[in-house]
Amino acid sequence: MVNSEILSSAQNPRIKRLLQLQQKSSVRRKEGVFVVEGQREIMHCIDSGFEIESIFYCSPIMNATDTDVLHRSNSDVDPQRLLQRAHQVIEVSPELYGKIAYREGTEGMVATVFEKSTSLQDLQLSPSPLVMVLERVEKPGNLGAILRSADACGADAVIICDPLTDLHNPNLIRSSIGAIFSVPCVACTSAECITYLKERGIQILTAQLQDSHLYYDTPMDIPTAIVMGTEATGLTPQWREAADAHIRIPMLGRLDSLNVSVSAAILLYEAVRQRSK
Amino acid sequence: MVNSEILSSAQNPRIKRLLQLQQKSSVRRKEGVFVVEGQREIMHCIDSGFEIESIFYCSPIMNATDTDVLHRSNSDVDPQRLLQRAHQVIEVSPELYGKIAYREGTEGMVATVFEKSTSLQDLQLSPSPLVMVLERVEKPGNLGAILRSADACGADAVIICDPLTDLHNPNLIRSSIGAIFSVPCVACTSAECITYLKERGIQILTAQLQDSHLYYDTPMDIPTAIVMGTEATGLTPQWREAADAHIRIPMLGRLDSLNVSVSAAILLYEAVRQRSK
Repeated sequence: MVNSEILSSAQNPRIKRLLQLQQKSSVRRKEGVFVVEGQREIMHCIDSGFEIESIFYCSPIMNATDTDVLHRSNSDVDPQRLLQRAHQVIEVSPELYGKIAYREGTEGMVATVFEKSTSLQDLQLSPSPLVMVLERVEKPGNLGAILRSADACGADAVIICDPLTDLHNPNLIRSSIGAIFSVPCVACTSAECITYLKERGIQILTAQLQDSHLYYDTPMDIPTAIVMGTEATGLTPQWREAADAHIRIPMLGRLDSLNVSVSAAILLYEAVRQRSK
Repeated sequence: MVNSEILSSAQNPRIKRLLQLQQKSSVRRKEGVFVVEGQREIMHCIDSGFEIESIFYCSPIMNATDTDVLHRSNSDVDPQRLLQRAHQVIEVSPELYGKIAYREGTEGMVATVFEKSTSLQDLQLSPSPLVMVLERVEKPGNLGAILRSADACGADAVIICDPLTDLHNPNLIRSSIGAIFSVPCVACTSAECITYLKERGIQILTAQLQDSHLYYDTPMDIPTAIVMGTEATGLTPQWREAADAHIRIPMLGRLDSLNVSVSAAILLYEAVRQRSK
Protein backbone atom coordinates (compact mmCIF):
# COMPACT_ATOMS: atom_id res chain seq x y z
CA MET A 1 0.00 0.00 0.00
CA VAL A 2 2.75 2.49 0.86
CA ASN A 3 4.83 3.66 -2.06
CA SER A 4 8.57 3.36 -1.47
CA GLU A 5 9.45 6.37 -3.61
CA ILE A 6 9.46 9.74 -1.82
CA LEU A 7 8.59 12.61 -4.14
CA SER A 8 10.55 15.80 -3.68
CA SER A 9 10.00 17.79 -6.91
CA ALA A 10 7.21 20.30 -7.47
CA GLN A 11 7.62 19.53 -11.18
CA ASN A 12 6.25 16.00 -10.77
CA PRO A 13 3.02 15.76 -12.79
CA ARG A 14 1.02 14.53 -9.79
CA ILE A 15 2.15 17.49 -7.72
CA LYS A 16 1.43 19.94 -10.54
CA ARG A 17 -2.10 18.56 -10.83
CA LEU A 18 -2.60 18.80 -7.07
CA LEU A 19 -1.58 22.46 -7.05
CA GLN A 20 -3.94 23.15 -9.94
CA LEU A 21 -6.81 21.47 -8.11
CA GLN A 22 -6.08 23.61 -5.04
CA GLN A 23 -5.91 26.86 -6.93
CA LYS A 24 -8.47 26.63 -9.72
CA SER A 25 -12.16 25.99 -9.33
CA SER A 26 -12.35 25.39 -13.11
CA VAL A 27 -9.95 22.43 -12.79
CA ARG A 28 -11.91 21.09 -9.82
CA ARG A 29 -15.13 21.28 -11.81
CA LYS A 30 -13.64 19.68 -14.89
CA GLU A 31 -12.08 16.76 -13.03
CA GLY A 32 -14.83 16.30 -10.43
CA VAL A 33 -12.13 16.17 -7.77
CA PHE A 34 -11.27 18.54 -4.91
CA VAL A 35 -8.56 18.84 -2.27
CA VAL A 36 -8.85 18.26 1.48
CA GLU A 37 -6.06 18.94 3.94
CA GLY A 38 -5.64 17.75 7.50
CA GLN A 39 -6.09 14.32 9.05
CA ARG A 40 -9.28 15.14 10.87
CA GLU A 41 -10.85 16.72 7.79
CA ILE A 42 -9.95 13.67 5.69
CA MET A 43 -11.45 11.42 8.36
CA HIS A 44 -14.71 13.41 8.30
CA CYS A 45 -14.68 13.08 4.54
CA ILE A 46 -14.34 9.29 4.66
CA ASP A 47 -16.91 8.98 7.45
CA SER A 48 -19.36 10.95 5.31
CA GLY A 49 -19.03 8.51 2.42
CA PHE A 50 -16.65 10.36 0.12
CA GLU A 51 -14.21 8.36 -1.98
CA ILE A 52 -10.55 9.31 -1.63
CA GLU A 53 -8.54 9.36 -4.87
CA SER A 54 -5.05 9.98 -3.44
CA ILE A 55 -3.36 10.96 -0.22
CA PHE A 56 -0.09 12.89 -0.29
CA TYR A 57 1.60 12.46 3.07
CA CYS A 58 4.79 13.50 4.77
CA SER A 59 5.79 10.81 7.23
CA PRO A 60 7.68 12.85 9.89
CA ILE A 61 4.93 15.49 10.07
CA MET A 62 2.08 12.97 9.91
CA ASN A 63 3.47 11.00 12.81
CA ALA A 64 4.50 13.99 14.94
CA THR A 65 3.56 13.64 18.58
CA ASP A 66 3.78 17.37 19.24
CA THR A 67 1.17 17.94 21.93
CA ASP A 68 -0.16 21.07 20.34
CA VAL A 69 -0.81 19.36 17.03
CA LEU A 70 -2.28 16.40 18.86
CA HIS A 71 -4.58 18.52 20.89
CA ARG A 72 -5.69 20.55 17.96
CA SER A 73 -6.99 17.86 15.76
CA ASN A 74 -5.31 14.50 15.60
CA SER A 75 -6.04 12.94 18.94
CA ASP A 76 -8.79 10.69 17.62
CA VAL A 77 -7.38 9.99 14.15
CA ASP A 78 -5.23 7.06 13.08
CA PRO A 79 -3.20 8.19 10.04
CA GLN A 80 -2.58 4.61 8.89
CA ARG A 81 -6.31 3.98 8.72
CA LEU A 82 -6.70 7.04 6.49
CA LEU A 83 -3.94 5.89 4.13
CA GLN A 84 -5.66 2.53 3.73
CA ARG A 85 -8.77 4.23 2.39
CA ALA A 86 -7.07 5.99 -0.53
CA HIS A 87 -6.86 4.55 -4.05
CA GLN A 88 -3.24 5.66 -4.07
CA VAL A 89 -0.83 7.06 -1.52
CA ILE A 90 2.15 9.23 -2.38
CA GLU A 91 4.88 10.06 0.10
CA VAL A 92 6.47 13.50 -0.25
CA SER A 93 9.53 15.10 1.34
CA PRO A 94 9.07 17.69 4.12
CA GLU A 95 10.27 20.44 1.75
CA LEU A 96 7.75 19.49 -0.92
CA TYR A 97 5.02 19.10 1.71
CA GLY A 98 5.67 22.71 2.70
CA LYS A 99 4.76 23.69 -0.87
CA ILE A 100 1.54 21.70 -1.16
CA ALA A 101 0.20 22.41 2.34
CA TYR A 102 -2.34 25.21 2.28
CA ARG A 103 -2.59 25.68 6.03
CA GLU A 104 -0.02 26.98 8.45
CA GLY A 105 -0.40 24.44 11.23
CA THR A 106 0.00 21.23 9.33
CA GLU A 107 -0.78 17.56 9.87
CA GLY A 108 1.26 16.02 7.11
CA MET A 109 -1.61 14.91 4.90
CA VAL A 110 -3.37 16.30 1.81
CA ALA A 111 -5.97 14.31 -0.13
CA THR A 112 -7.69 14.53 -3.48
CA VAL A 113 -11.32 13.48 -3.16
CA PHE A 114 -14.05 12.65 -5.68
CA GLU A 115 -17.03 15.03 -5.63
CA LYS A 116 -20.49 13.75 -4.73
CA SER A 117 -23.13 15.84 -6.39
CA THR A 118 -26.21 16.42 -4.29
CA SER A 119 -29.40 17.98 -5.60
CA LEU A 120 -32.45 19.28 -3.73
CA GLN A 121 -34.27 16.05 -4.59
CA ASP A 122 -31.53 14.00 -2.89
CA LEU A 123 -32.00 15.71 0.48
CA GLN A 124 -33.46 13.52 3.20
CA LEU A 125 -35.27 15.75 5.65
CA SER A 126 -36.43 14.91 9.15
CA PRO A 127 -40.18 15.19 9.99
CA SER A 128 -39.71 18.76 11.26
CA PRO A 129 -36.73 20.00 9.30
CA LEU A 130 -34.47 22.91 10.14
CA VAL A 131 -32.79 24.21 7.00
CA MET A 132 -30.28 27.05 6.60
CA VAL A 133 -30.51 28.91 3.30
CA LEU A 134 -27.83 31.34 2.17
CA GLU A 135 -28.23 33.56 -0.85
CA ARG A 136 -25.12 34.76 -2.67
CA VAL A 137 -22.81 34.49 0.31
CA GLU A 138 -19.46 35.48 -1.12
CA LYS A 139 -16.84 34.76 1.54
CA PRO A 140 -15.76 31.11 1.71
CA GLY A 141 -14.66 31.62 5.34
CA ASN A 142 -18.15 32.78 6.36
CA LEU A 143 -19.80 29.89 4.56
CA GLY A 144 -17.44 27.42 6.24
CA ALA A 145 -18.21 28.89 9.67
CA ILE A 146 -21.96 28.63 8.99
CA LEU A 147 -21.59 24.99 7.97
CA ARG A 148 -19.79 24.34 11.26
CA SER A 149 -22.70 25.87 13.20
CA ALA A 150 -25.25 24.00 11.05
CA ASP A 151 -23.53 20.73 11.94
CA ALA A 152 -23.42 21.67 15.63
CA CYS A 153 -27.13 22.45 15.83
CA GLY A 154 -28.15 19.37 13.88
CA ALA A 155 -29.62 21.23 10.90
CA ASP A 156 -31.02 19.01 8.15
CA ALA A 157 -29.28 20.82 5.30
CA VAL A 158 -27.61 23.98 4.11
CA ILE A 159 -28.86 25.26 0.76
CA ILE A 160 -26.67 27.75 -1.09
CA CYS A 161 -28.63 29.83 -3.59
CA ASP A 162 -26.88 31.42 -6.56
CA PRO A 163 -23.46 30.82 -4.98
CA LEU A 164 -20.55 33.15 -5.66
CA THR A 165 -18.00 30.67 -4.34
CA ASP A 166 -17.59 27.03 -5.26
CA LEU A 167 -18.36 24.57 -2.50
CA HIS A 168 -14.92 22.99 -2.73
CA ASN A 169 -12.92 26.17 -2.17
CA PRO A 170 -9.99 25.27 0.16
CA ASN A 171 -10.79 28.19 2.51
CA LEU A 172 -14.38 26.99 2.84
CA ILE A 173 -13.33 23.41 3.57
CA ARG A 174 -10.78 24.58 6.12
CA SER A 175 -13.08 26.97 7.98
CA SER A 176 -15.86 24.36 8.10
CA ILE A 177 -13.39 21.96 9.80
CA GLY A 178 -15.14 19.10 8.02
CA ALA A 179 -18.77 20.20 8.34
CA ILE A 180 -18.91 20.59 4.55
CA PHE A 181 -18.82 16.78 4.50
CA SER A 182 -21.16 16.01 7.37
CA VAL A 183 -23.94 18.53 6.63
CA PRO A 184 -25.92 17.88 3.43
CA CYS A 185 -25.15 20.88 1.26
CA VAL A 186 -26.86 21.75 -2.05
CA ALA A 187 -26.33 24.59 -4.51
CA CYS A 188 -29.29 25.76 -6.60
CA THR A 189 -31.10 28.93 -7.70
CA SER A 190 -33.22 30.94 -5.30
CA ALA A 191 -36.30 30.19 -7.42
CA GLU A 192 -35.68 26.43 -7.17
CA CYS A 193 -35.16 26.68 -3.45
CA ILE A 194 -38.35 28.68 -2.86
CA THR A 195 -40.38 26.14 -4.84
CA TYR A 196 -38.78 23.28 -2.90
CA LEU A 197 -39.56 24.81 0.49
CA LYS A 198 -43.13 25.81 -0.43
CA GLU A 199 -43.94 22.36 -1.79
CA ARG A 200 -42.86 20.78 1.49
CA GLY A 201 -44.68 23.24 3.75
CA ILE A 202 -41.47 24.53 5.30
CA GLN A 203 -41.94 28.05 6.67
CA ILE A 204 -39.54 30.65 5.26
CA LEU A 205 -38.05 33.08 7.80
CA THR A 206 -35.91 35.75 6.17
CA ALA A 207 -33.34 37.68 8.16
CA GLN A 208 -34.01 41.34 7.31
CA LEU A 209 -34.91 44.51 9.15
CA GLN A 210 -37.95 45.69 7.23
CA ASP A 211 -41.32 44.77 8.79
CA SER A 212 -39.52 42.28 10.99
CA HIS A 213 -40.20 40.48 14.26
CA LEU A 214 -37.64 39.78 16.94
CA TYR A 215 -36.25 36.34 16.16
CA TYR A 216 -36.98 34.96 19.63
CA ASP A 217 -40.65 35.93 19.35
CA THR A 218 -41.00 33.88 16.16
CA PRO A 219 -42.00 30.19 16.38
CA MET A 220 -39.30 27.93 14.93
CA ASP A 221 -40.51 24.61 16.33
CA ILE A 222 -42.31 23.85 13.09
CA PRO A 223 -40.61 22.97 9.76
CA THR A 224 -38.41 26.02 9.23
CA ALA A 225 -35.95 27.49 6.76
CA ILE A 226 -33.84 30.42 7.98
CA VAL A 227 -32.75 32.52 4.99
CA MET A 228 -29.90 35.01 5.00
CA GLY A 229 -28.33 37.18 2.32
CA THR A 230 -25.01 38.96 2.14
CA GLU A 231 -23.82 41.43 4.77
CA ALA A 232 -23.53 44.08 2.07
CA THR A 233 -26.73 43.85 0.09
CA GLY A 234 -29.10 41.53 1.97
CA LEU A 235 -31.65 39.33 0.26
CA THR A 236 -33.12 39.74 -3.22
CA PRO A 237 -36.82 40.71 -3.49
CA GLN A 238 -37.97 37.19 -4.44
CA TRP A 239 -37.10 36.04 -0.91
CA ARG A 240 -38.88 38.94 0.77
CA GLU A 241 -42.00 38.05 -1.18
CA ALA A 242 -41.73 34.33 -0.45
CA ALA A 243 -41.20 34.87 3.28
CA ASP A 244 -43.72 33.75 5.89
CA ALA A 245 -42.09 36.18 8.32
CA HIS A 246 -39.13 38.53 8.44
CA ILE A 247 -36.96 38.21 11.52
CA ARG A 248 -34.26 40.39 13.06
CA ILE A 249 -31.69 40.16 15.80
CA PRO A 250 -31.92 43.23 18.07
CA MET A 251 -28.88 45.50 17.80
CA LEU A 252 -28.47 47.16 21.19
CA GLY A 253 -25.06 48.81 20.76
CA ARG A 254 -23.37 51.29 18.53
CA LEU A 255 -22.63 49.09 15.53
CA ASP A 256 -25.34 48.24 13.04
CA SER A 257 -24.62 44.64 12.12
CA LEU A 258 -23.28 41.28 13.22
CA ASN A 259 -21.06 39.02 11.19
CA VAL A 260 -23.24 36.81 8.95
CA SER A 261 -21.89 33.59 10.44
CA VAL A 262 -22.53 34.85 13.98
CA SER A 263 -26.09 35.85 13.04
CA ALA A 264 -26.71 32.45 11.46
CA ALA A 265 -25.58 30.66 14.64
CA ILE A 266 -27.80 32.80 16.88
CA LEU A 267 -30.85 32.08 14.72
CA LEU A 268 -30.15 28.35 14.35
CA TYR A 269 -29.66 27.89 18.09
CA GLU A 270 -32.90 29.70 18.85
CA ALA A 271 -34.60 26.96 16.81
CA VAL A 272 -32.72 24.34 18.87
CA ARG A 273 -33.85 26.03 22.10
CA GLN A 274 -37.51 26.20 21.04
CA ARG A 275 -37.47 22.59 19.85
CA SER A 276 -36.06 21.39 23.19
CA LYS A 277 -39.10 22.66 25.13
CA MET B 1 -5.27 72.23 8.91
CA VAL B 2 -4.37 70.33 5.74
CA ASN B 3 -0.68 70.02 5.07
CA SER B 4 0.33 71.04 1.55
CA GLU B 5 3.21 68.56 1.33
CA ILE B 6 2.31 65.08 0.04
CA LEU B 7 4.59 62.39 1.49
CA SER B 8 5.70 59.67 -0.89
CA SER B 9 8.70 58.06 0.81
CA ALA B 10 8.54 55.11 3.19
CA GLN B 11 11.82 56.42 4.63
CA ASN B 12 10.13 59.49 6.11
CA PRO B 13 10.49 59.29 9.91
CA ARG B 14 6.75 59.68 10.48
CA ILE B 15 6.02 56.78 8.15
CA LYS B 16 8.72 54.62 9.72
CA ARG B 17 7.19 55.25 13.16
CA LEU B 18 3.71 54.44 11.85
CA LEU B 19 4.89 51.11 10.45
CA GLN B 20 6.59 50.30 13.76
CA LEU B 21 3.41 51.09 15.66
CA GLN B 22 1.47 48.77 13.34
CA GLN B 23 3.88 45.90 13.64
CA LYS B 24 5.20 45.94 17.20
CA SER B 25 3.17 45.73 20.36
CA SER B 26 6.30 46.77 22.32
CA VAL B 27 6.40 50.09 20.45
CA ARG B 28 2.66 50.60 21.00
CA ARG B 29 3.08 50.00 24.73
CA LYS B 30 6.12 52.28 25.02
CA GLU B 31 4.51 55.17 23.19
CA GLY B 32 0.96 54.69 24.48
CA VAL B 33 -0.27 55.06 20.91
CA PHE B 34 -1.91 52.59 18.54
CA VAL B 35 -3.03 52.53 14.91
CA VAL B 36 -6.58 52.55 13.54
CA GLU B 37 -7.42 52.15 9.86
CA GLY B 38 -10.61 52.95 8.02
CA GLN B 39 -12.91 55.96 8.15
CA ARG B 40 -15.69 54.26 10.04
CA GLU B 41 -13.32 52.80 12.63
CA ILE B 42 -11.72 56.22 13.18
CA MET B 43 -15.17 57.74 13.58
CA HIS B 44 -16.09 55.12 16.22
CA CYS B 45 -12.83 55.92 17.95
CA ILE B 46 -13.60 59.66 18.10
CA ASP B 47 -17.22 59.06 19.13
CA SER B 48 -15.95 56.91 22.00
CA GLY B 49 -13.77 59.70 23.36
CA PHE B 50 -10.35 58.71 22.06
CA GLU B 51 -7.89 61.43 21.15
CA ILE B 52 -6.43 61.25 17.64
CA GLU B 53 -2.74 62.02 17.32
CA SER B 54 -2.38 61.99 13.51
CA ILE B 55 -4.29 60.99 10.43
CA PHE B 56 -2.43 59.81 7.33
CA TYR B 57 -4.76 60.16 4.38
CA CYS B 58 -4.69 59.63 0.64
CA SER B 59 -7.00 62.12 -1.00
CA PRO B 60 -8.11 60.21 -4.14
CA ILE B 61 -8.88 57.05 -2.16
CA MET B 62 -10.48 58.89 0.76
CA ASN B 63 -12.87 60.76 -1.52
CA ALA B 64 -13.67 57.82 -3.79
CA THR B 65 -17.35 57.51 -4.57
CA ASP B 66 -17.09 53.88 -5.61
CA THR B 67 -20.44 52.45 -4.62
CA ASP B 68 -18.94 49.31 -3.17
CA VAL B 69 -16.67 51.28 -0.85
CA LEU B 70 -19.56 53.57 0.02
CA HIS B 71 -21.84 50.73 0.81
CA ARG B 72 -19.28 48.91 2.82
CA SER B 73 -18.49 51.50 5.34
CA ASN B 74 -18.31 55.14 4.40
CA SER B 75 -21.87 56.10 3.72
CA ASP B 76 -22.35 57.82 7.07
CA VAL B 77 -18.85 59.24 7.53
CA ASP B 78 -17.60 62.70 6.52
CA PRO B 79 -13.83 62.40 5.98
CA GLN B 80 -13.30 66.15 6.43
CA ARG B 81 -14.86 65.98 9.89
CA LEU B 82 -12.44 63.22 10.84
CA LEU B 83 -9.42 65.22 9.63
CA GLN B 84 -10.50 68.16 11.78
CA ARG B 85 -10.29 66.03 14.90
CA ALA B 86 -6.62 65.06 14.52
CA HIS B 87 -3.73 66.94 16.12
CA GLN B 88 -1.95 66.64 12.80
CA VAL B 89 -2.88 65.48 9.32
CA ILE B 90 -0.41 64.10 6.81
CA GLU B 91 -1.24 63.57 3.16
CA VAL B 92 0.44 60.62 1.46
CA SER B 93 0.67 59.51 -2.18
CA PRO B 94 -1.43 56.55 -3.38
CA GLU B 95 1.75 54.45 -3.73
CA LEU B 96 2.82 55.17 -0.17
CA TYR B 97 -0.73 54.62 1.10
CA GLY B 98 -0.56 51.14 -0.41
CA LYS B 99 2.39 50.46 1.89
CA ILE B 100 0.86 51.74 5.12
CA ALA B 101 -2.64 50.32 4.62
CA TYR B 102 -3.08 47.08 6.49
CA ARG B 103 -6.39 46.09 4.95
CA GLU B 104 -7.16 45.06 1.41
CA GLY B 105 -10.28 47.09 0.79
CA THR B 106 -9.12 50.51 1.77
CA GLU B 107 -10.69 53.83 2.67
CA GLY B 108 -7.71 56.12 2.35
CA MET B 109 -7.22 56.88 6.04
CA VAL B 110 -4.98 55.56 8.81
CA ALA B 111 -4.78 57.21 12.26
CA THR B 112 -2.50 57.03 15.27
CA VAL B 113 -4.55 57.23 18.46
CA PHE B 114 -3.66 57.79 22.14
CA GLU B 115 -4.48 54.84 24.41
CA LYS B 116 -7.02 55.25 27.22
CA SER B 117 -6.24 52.88 30.04
CA THR B 118 -9.31 51.41 31.72
CA SER B 119 -9.20 49.39 34.93
CA LEU B 120 -11.87 47.24 36.57
CA GLN B 121 -12.59 50.09 38.99
CA ASP B 122 -13.34 52.44 36.07
CA LEU B 123 -16.14 50.24 34.69
CA GLN B 124 -19.61 51.69 35.03
CA LEU B 125 -22.06 48.84 35.20
CA SER B 126 -25.81 48.92 34.72
CA PRO B 127 -28.09 47.74 37.58
CA SER B 128 -28.25 44.19 36.13
CA PRO B 129 -24.99 43.91 34.26
CA LEU B 130 -24.13 41.46 31.49
CA VAL B 131 -20.37 40.97 31.30
CA MET B 132 -18.35 38.84 28.89
CA VAL B 133 -15.15 37.40 30.38
CA LEU B 134 -12.49 35.77 28.23
CA GLU B 135 -9.53 33.94 29.66
CA ARG B 136 -6.34 33.67 27.61
CA VAL B 137 -8.04 34.04 24.25
CA GLU B 138 -5.14 33.99 21.84
CA LYS B 139 -6.50 34.87 18.41
CA PRO B 140 -6.97 38.62 17.85
CA GLY B 141 -9.57 37.90 15.16
CA ASN B 142 -11.73 35.90 17.59
CA LEU B 143 -11.45 38.58 20.25
CA GLY B 144 -12.45 41.25 17.73
CA ALA B 145 -15.47 39.22 16.64
CA ILE B 146 -16.55 38.75 20.28
CA LEU B 147 -16.27 42.49 20.91
CA ARG B 148 -18.51 43.07 17.90
CA SER B 149 -21.14 40.72 19.35
CA ALA B 150 -20.74 42.25 22.83
CA ASP B 151 -21.49 45.67 21.35
CA ALA B 152 -24.47 44.32 19.43
CA CYS B 153 -26.08 42.72 22.49
CA GLY B 154 -25.48 45.76 24.71
CA ALA B 155 -23.08 44.03 27.11
CA ASP B 156 -21.74 46.24 29.89
CA ALA B 157 -18.10 45.23 29.44
CA VAL B 158 -15.66 42.69 28.09
CA ILE B 159 -12.99 41.62 30.57
CA ILE B 160 -9.90 39.93 29.17
CA CYS B 161 -8.09 37.82 31.76
CA ASP B 162 -4.39 37.04 31.39
CA PRO B 163 -4.45 38.15 27.74
CA LEU B 164 -2.11 36.60 25.19
CA THR B 165 -2.72 39.36 22.66
CA ASP B 166 -2.49 43.10 23.17
CA LEU B 167 -5.79 44.95 22.91
CA HIS B 168 -4.46 47.23 20.18
CA ASN B 169 -3.42 44.53 17.75
CA PRO B 170 -4.42 45.69 14.23
CA ASN B 171 -6.20 42.41 13.47
CA LEU B 172 -8.26 42.75 16.63
CA ILE B 173 -9.23 46.34 15.85
CA ARG B 174 -10.13 45.41 12.31
CA SER B 175 -12.23 42.38 13.16
CA SER B 176 -14.08 44.29 15.88
CA ILE B 177 -15.03 46.93 13.24
CA GLY B 178 -14.83 49.56 15.97
CA ALA B 179 -16.41 47.69 18.89
CA ILE B 180 -13.05 47.76 20.69
CA PHE B 181 -13.78 51.48 21.15
CA SER B 182 -17.48 51.35 21.98
CA VAL B 183 -17.48 48.42 24.43
CA PRO B 184 -15.66 49.03 27.74
CA CYS B 185 -12.77 46.59 27.66
CA VAL B 186 -10.42 45.82 30.55
CA ALA B 187 -7.41 43.51 30.85
CA CYS B 188 -6.59 42.01 34.28
CA THR B 189 -5.74 38.72 35.93
CA SER B 190 -8.33 35.99 36.43
CA ALA B 191 -7.94 36.35 40.21
CA GLU B 192 -8.69 40.10 40.06
CA CYS B 193 -11.70 39.46 37.84
CA ILE B 194 -13.15 36.77 40.12
CA THR B 195 -12.83 39.06 43.15
CA TYR B 196 -14.44 41.91 41.23
CA LEU B 197 -17.43 39.81 40.15
CA LYS B 198 -17.94 38.20 43.58
CA GLU B 199 -17.83 41.57 45.37
CA ARG B 200 -20.59 42.87 43.12
CA GLY B 201 -22.82 39.81 43.36
CA ILE B 202 -22.53 39.03 39.66
CA GLN B 203 -23.18 35.33 38.98
CA ILE B 204 -20.37 33.53 37.18
CA LEU B 205 -21.43 31.16 34.37
CA THR B 206 -18.51 29.25 32.90
CA ALA B 207 -18.75 27.66 29.46
CA GLN B 208 -17.51 24.11 29.96
CA LEU B 209 -18.83 20.59 29.49
CA GLN B 210 -18.17 19.04 32.90
CA ASP B 211 -21.19 19.03 35.26
CA SER B 212 -22.88 21.53 32.99
CA HIS B 213 -26.44 22.68 32.32
CA LEU B 214 -27.85 23.56 28.92
CA TYR B 215 -27.29 27.29 28.52
CA TYR B 216 -30.94 28.01 27.76
CA ASP B 217 -32.07 26.32 30.96
CA THR B 218 -29.85 28.65 33.02
CA PRO B 219 -31.27 31.99 34.27
CA MET B 220 -29.32 34.94 32.88
CA ASP B 221 -31.78 37.71 33.72
CA ILE B 222 -29.87 38.49 36.91
CA PRO B 223 -26.42 40.14 37.06
CA THR B 224 -24.35 37.73 34.96
CA ALA B 225 -20.82 37.16 33.75
CA ILE B 226 -20.36 34.62 30.96
CA VAL B 227 -16.83 33.21 31.10
CA MET B 228 -15.07 31.41 28.26
CA GLY B 229 -11.57 30.00 27.83
CA THR B 230 -9.63 29.02 24.75
CA GLU B 231 -10.90 26.53 22.17
CA ALA B 232 -7.83 24.38 22.81
CA THR B 233 -7.51 24.18 26.58
CA GLY B 234 -10.69 25.66 28.09
CA LEU B 235 -10.74 27.48 31.41
CA THR B 236 -8.22 27.23 34.24
CA PRO B 237 -9.37 25.53 37.50
CA GLN B 238 -9.77 28.82 39.39
CA TRP B 239 -12.75 29.65 37.17
CA ARG B 240 -14.36 26.24 37.58
CA GLU B 241 -14.17 26.70 41.33
CA ALA B 242 -15.49 30.25 41.25
CA ALA B 243 -18.43 29.35 38.99
CA ASP B 244 -22.05 29.56 40.15
CA ALA B 245 -22.96 27.23 37.28
CA HIS B 246 -21.31 25.56 34.31
CA ILE B 247 -23.15 25.94 31.03
CA ARG B 248 -22.85 24.20 27.66
CA ILE B 249 -24.21 24.62 24.17
CA PRO B 250 -25.64 21.31 22.93
CA MET B 251 -23.62 19.79 20.09
CA LEU B 252 -26.06 17.83 17.94
CA GLY B 253 -23.89 17.01 14.92
CA ARG B 254 -20.67 15.26 14.14
CA LEU B 255 -18.18 17.96 15.15
CA ASP B 256 -17.34 18.52 18.78
CA SER B 257 -16.99 22.27 19.06
CA LEU B 258 -18.12 25.67 17.83
CA ASN B 259 -15.86 28.62 17.10
CA VAL B 260 -15.31 30.56 20.35
CA SER B 261 -16.73 33.79 18.90
CA VAL B 262 -19.84 31.97 17.67
CA SER B 263 -20.32 30.36 21.09
CA ALA B 264 -19.93 33.73 22.81
CA ALA B 265 -22.61 35.28 20.60
CA ILE B 266 -25.07 32.42 21.22
CA LEU B 267 -24.65 32.76 25.00
CA LEU B 268 -24.80 36.57 25.04
CA TYR B 269 -27.97 36.63 22.96
CA GLU B 270 -29.64 34.09 25.21
CA ALA B 271 -29.17 36.64 28.01
CA VAL B 272 -30.73 39.29 25.75
CA ARG B 273 -33.68 37.00 25.04
CA GLN B 274 -34.29 36.19 28.71
CA ARG B 275 -34.00 39.85 29.70
CA SER B 276 -36.59 40.87 27.09
CA LYS B 277 -39.32 38.74 28.70
